[in-house]
Amino acid sequence: MTAADIRAAHARIAAHIRRTPIIETPAPIAGMAPVSLKLECLQHAGSFKARGAFHNLLTRPAPAAGCATASGGNHGAAVAYAAEKLGVRARVFVPEIATPAKIAKIRAHGAEAVVSGGSYAEAQARCDAYVAESGALKIHPYDAAGAGTAALEWEEGLARLALPALDTVLVAVGGGGLIAGVAAWFAGRVKVVGVEPEFSRAMDAAFEAGRSVDVAVNSIAADSLGAKRVGDRNFVIARQFVAEVALVPDAAIIEAQRRLWSDVSIVAEPGGAAAFAALASGAYRSPKAERVGVLVCGANVDLAAFAKLL
Amino acid sequence: MTAADIRAAHARIAAHIRRTPIIETPAPIAGMAPVSLKLECLQHAGSFKARGAFHNLLTRPAPAAGCATASGGNHGAAVAYAAEKLGVRARVFVPEIATPAKIAKIRAHGAEAVVSGGSYAEAQARCDAYVAESGALKIHPYDAAGAGTAALEWEEGLARLALPALDTVLVAVGGGGLIAGVAAWFAGRVKVVGVEPEFSRAMDAAFEAGRSVDVAVNSIAADSLGAKRVGDRNFVIARQFVAEVALVPDAAIIEAQRRLWSDVSIVAEPGGAAAFAALASGAYRSPKAERVGVLVCGANVDLAAFAKLL
Repeated sequence: MTAADIRAAHARIAAHIRRTPIIETPAPIAGMAPVSLKLECLQHAGSFKARGAFHNLLTRPAPAAGCATASGGNHGAAVAYAAEKLGVRARVFVPEIATPAKIAKIRAHGAEAVVSGGSYAEAQARCDAYVAESGALKIHPYDAAGAGTAALEWEEGLARLALPALDTVLVAVGGGGLIAGVAAWFAGRVKVVGVEPEFSRAMDAAFEAGRSVDVAVNSIAADSLGAKRVGDRNFVIARQFVAEVALVPDAAIIEAQRRLWSDVSIVAEPGGAAAFAALASGAYRSPKAERVGVLVCGANVDLAAFAKLL
Repeated sequence: MTAADIRAAHARIAAHIRRTPIIETPAPIAGMAPVSLKLECLQHAGSFKARGAFHNLLTRPAPAAGCATASGGNHGAAVAYAAEKLGVRARVFVPEIATPAKIAKIRAHGAEAVVSGGSYAEAQARCDAYVAESGALKIHPYDAAGAGTAALEWEEGLARLALPALDTVLVAVGGGGLIAGVAAWFAGRVKVVGVEPEFSRAMDAAFEAGRSVDVAVNSIAADSLGAKRVGDRNFVIARQFVAEVALVPDAAIIEAQRRLWSDVSIVAEPGGAAAFAALASGAYRSPKAERVGVLVCGANVDLAAFAKLL
């Protein structure tokens, strides 16, 4: 996948997605240049996943049976949103561990949410069986070309606003679709750093092993970053263009959520705050002269639970 | 006050405030063009008030005694923030009705919050006495030139993003400083509509009477829009350039808060959501061909209370 593929994806989805804002905020480290935040948390359906969902549905026309996917949350909500806007039926298979806020969002967009099975794997198996039986279009959760359009907009947006370009971007990693897209867009022109929860480190483990491998998952961000392993195609891109992976403890993620709320009045879900946490906690040690961008990738929290964190 | 004054204010404060994002969102009315939101809720200290606070403190140097103001909330938090950044001592006199979230924000920025008196008038009297005794610089809550810089950025930002210019802007009214600034900036080039809670209608009453008059206040948005009367100088500008005032019931404000959260993942305080409420509820009836902008002016809610609304 190349920058040209991402540009083509953007042309296809631009009328349907939100060109999310970029905003400057003081660095959480003294003496450092202001940080650029790309607020994908303000994307339709609350996360960057809307990009891939539209890219899928606009590239491959769905049959009368509609589309189907398996997702514990953001991807499911994004597919539901995109399907609703494009007039396509959608069925989303959701593991029982999904948060009520995300299931509610899937349903609010008119999709059928089938809550079944304790694990993502079980939901995926049910989804596959349904696709085989119904002929529905299966929507894969990783769409690096769609996700990479966020990086394209970011770079273009900084230029339009006459703001300094980025030296480094911090991007949270679940299954690796987002970071693969961002890394493919920048293709080495900007240093790309992956961020994972300490105990949900599928990309870190893949770098260690030289291939995608299974990890145990236990993190407050598991509902968005909790993939047991990264996608193979995502890892191929990451190996080429991701400079390093930083690991953050859950406590640093919560602290980052607090800080994004108090400093920017932004609500980020744990997975959405993880990249900022890497900078604020020092898990990623930035040379002070560096201009850093942080991708805030999702907002889909249960607000009552979020309020309790603060 | 003229557009040139606002341009001068912007030049003075630009390095200190956040150029808040503008974002497109589908209109809440079928068939209408997308609505432009100016997200002043993402401004430093959570509301547009940071603009006036910096404009004040950068225009008039504070003595060693620092500065003082009386405010139930957003203005106090903004003065605390600006004073902290500029290294000025600040004392904020807060009536007992202020929300804990706002008092906490004042203190978080290192200002002294003096909670005293049941009413804003009483807090103001205490503030005046303190200013007389200490020689501290008194910061007035209305700063139309500072507030008007939000409109300047909005118009410039739409042009930069190659998005359609506005026909009409909806702006919430408390004491009228924000709408005076916005109206002075557009000076009749764009239709400016004021929005007030049904039972906190100081501007509406002023239009009726032909001069600023006292009204009774009872609204969920009283902590930001609850001025008993509009400022005289604000009214002079409003009379010249504000086309109409729309009144919204509290229920419509809550519904707008819900909608901004579900559609844009934005947390707006009641006063911040009032302008959107006027459009969504039909309190302001927009000709469908119109391109409308909604200024979302503040985010400072107690999140636990906000979560309960949803």
